[in-house]
Amino acid sequence: MKLASLKQGRDGELIVVSRDLKHAVKASGIAPTLQAALDDWANLAPRLQALSDALNSGQAPLSFTFDEGACASPLPRAYQWADGSAYVNHVELVRKARNADMPTSFWQDPLMYQGGSDSFIGPRDPVPLASEDWGIDFEAEVAVITDDVPMGASPEVCADKIRLLMLVNDVSLRGLIPAELAKGFGFFQSKPSSVFSPVAVTPDELGAAWQDGRVHLPLLVTYNQALFGKANAGEDMTFNFPQIIAHAAKTRPLGAGAIIGSGTVSNKQDTEHGSAVAEGGVGYSCIAEVRMIETINTGQPQTAFMKFGDTIRIEMLDAQGQSVFGAIDQQVVAYKG
Amino acid sequence: MKLASLKQGRDGELIVVSRDLKHAVKASGIAPTLQAALDDWANLAPRLQALSDALNSGQAPLSFTFDEGACASPLPRAYQWADGSAYVNHVELVRKARNADMPTSFWQDPLMYQGGSDSFIGPRDPVPLASEDWGIDFEAEVAVITDDVPMGASPEVCADKIRLLMLVNDVSLRGLIPAELAKGFGFFQSKPSSVFSPVAVTPDELGAAWQDGRVHLPLLVTYNQALFGKANAGEDMTFNFPQIIAHAAKTRPLGAGAIIGSGTVSNKQDTEHGSAVAEGGVGYSCIAEVRMIETINTGQPQTAFMKFGDTIRIEMLDAQGQSVFGAIDQQVVAYKG
Repeated sequence: MKLASLKQGRDGELIVVSRDLKHAVKASGIAPTLQAALDDWANLAPRLQALSDALNSGQAPLSFTFDEGACASPLPRAYQWADGSAYVNHVELVRKARNADMPTSFWQDPLMYQGGSDSFIGPRDPVPLASEDWGIDFEAEVAVITDDVPMGASPEVCADKIRLLMLVNDVSLRGLIPAELAKGFGFFQSKPSSVFSPVAVTPDELGAAWQDGRVHLPLLVTYNQALFGKANAGEDMTFNFPQIIAHAAKTRPLGAGAIIGSGTVSNKQDTEHGSAVAEGGVGYSCIAEVRMIETINTGQPQTAFMKFGDTIRIEMLDAQGQSVFGAIDQQVVAYKG
Repeated sequence: MKLASLKQGRDGELIVVSRDLKHAVKASGIAPTLQAALDDWANLAPRLQALSDALNSGQAPLSFTFDEGACASPLPRAYQWADGSAYVNHVELVRKARNADMPTSFWQDPLMYQGGSDSFIGPRDPVPLASEDWGIDFEAEVAVITDDVPMGASPEVCADKIRLLMLVNDVSLRGLIPAELAKGFGFFQSKPSSVFSPVAVTPDELGAAWQDGRVHLPLLVTYNQALFGKANAGEDMTFNFPQIIAHAAKTRPLGAGAIIGSGTVSNKQDTEHGSAVAEGGVGYSCIAEVRMIETINTGQPQTAFMKFGDTIRIEMLDAQGQSVFGAIDQQVVAYKG
């Protein structure tokens, strides 16, 4: 089934969305919010599934036209947002651009950062930021929402705790990252509010594209109306979602509704570090990688980071060309404090 | 007023606690949970205050004996937990022990890490961890809970957004920190679930001890029944709470109920790095600092990290000797997965 949250109050109003994203029906009689559904998933998911079945067969009373623009992020705020960096090509590229070798342990031990989760931005809402000098970048990713995960759970156990999947725009402020990481405590100001796709879907909605804990579909990234990336999220994902979740849960339990991200999707494409769409490749899922390729090739980056007014669209189509999650489609704007 | 959450479900049941921590009354008729109260603070705080006034004057019907052991952390799970490192002496000590100078910028630019907030431990509950080899340590701190804070808010604006204060045991796994920080993305597995005091209090409950955005009272740390630290939380706090909150809100808003921590309380005591209780000083608020002093003085640490069965108690008394927040008092135990 496919779930979304209409904008309402702090946590939105839960709706069930049809497979083709054309219709929706309120699910607030079952659970007022997506978090409430996740808090009691075993009991409530079958009821949501029945409503979804009725909607998809055209038999749900009170259904209405689905509008992605009316959506908040599926969880407008969450108790946990941890982002892995499962596409090690992305990590290698970032480091190579600054002449730093990547430790070989990065192939066995996932990178993960603890994100902030109290103020996500809606999928069609502007991203307000105070300064273009911060080096504004998007990062297109896939994320899962888990059920309760016990501390120390194995990847096998974690695989059974994945309840929903979404897309992510993990907005990053590249200009703030070097100084912040140099302080040693990881990202904070350099990772402002993130954005999630209008719709969260259960793994079964992906059909054969959901295999081995990975989503085997291209992630379409359109920057200022031009295709920027179409990397396949199932390729070069060194750590699958069950492994990333197990990493997050090693020393503490995860609460129902925990969002765990894949990190920026990045394909090597049988080359050393992949190539841009303009070069005939599948392109990239963030500006930083293109700048790194440019730096590796020519000694300096040519592509600028985002300016106010720039737009970013992130979407994933299934084998039939149908949008799976709806689209993140938004503009970066100047923040007037 | 003083608020707490009785253990119940995922978010507890809100109660108002008397100033002397002897009595309590359910506040669920006003707000079912502390998060719900924070979500609509302007409207609900006056009603909670009226209930508090009635309780403190012995006129609250249905009041009952307050039991700290029945409490969850005031917010059993939260949308935001960000921990500063405002006592720069702590940072200097940590670095000195490994022969690393501290950048002078650390005196102007606060260190802060993004914590996980989906699974806090109750103040009297055991802290389950899988291995003593992880270097289990406590960190005694003060934290505030904020209202909504706009992105880019000044410290002056942030000062008016502090709704409640609590104590913290920011459990840390010292053995996992070096490798994790070397990866560059900050703490994750090395910071398991944190613990907060039974009671959260409004700033006015601190009277004259709440000044300049700091709590001017000793933080009593008792380790295995022996006094380990009594550092004054108002001294050597280089950045006050409004400054730390402003740092957290620089590039994104904070949602109501955001928890912002002070970092480990640490006093220099007119010496270079402070001294232990056994040496006549005010001692420390974590084992790591004692080990650092030992390392600085003798070349190697003598005090071991926590073993299963060890207990830690964290409390703060007002000028009259009355416990302000109740006590965190708990045992580290072996986790059986």
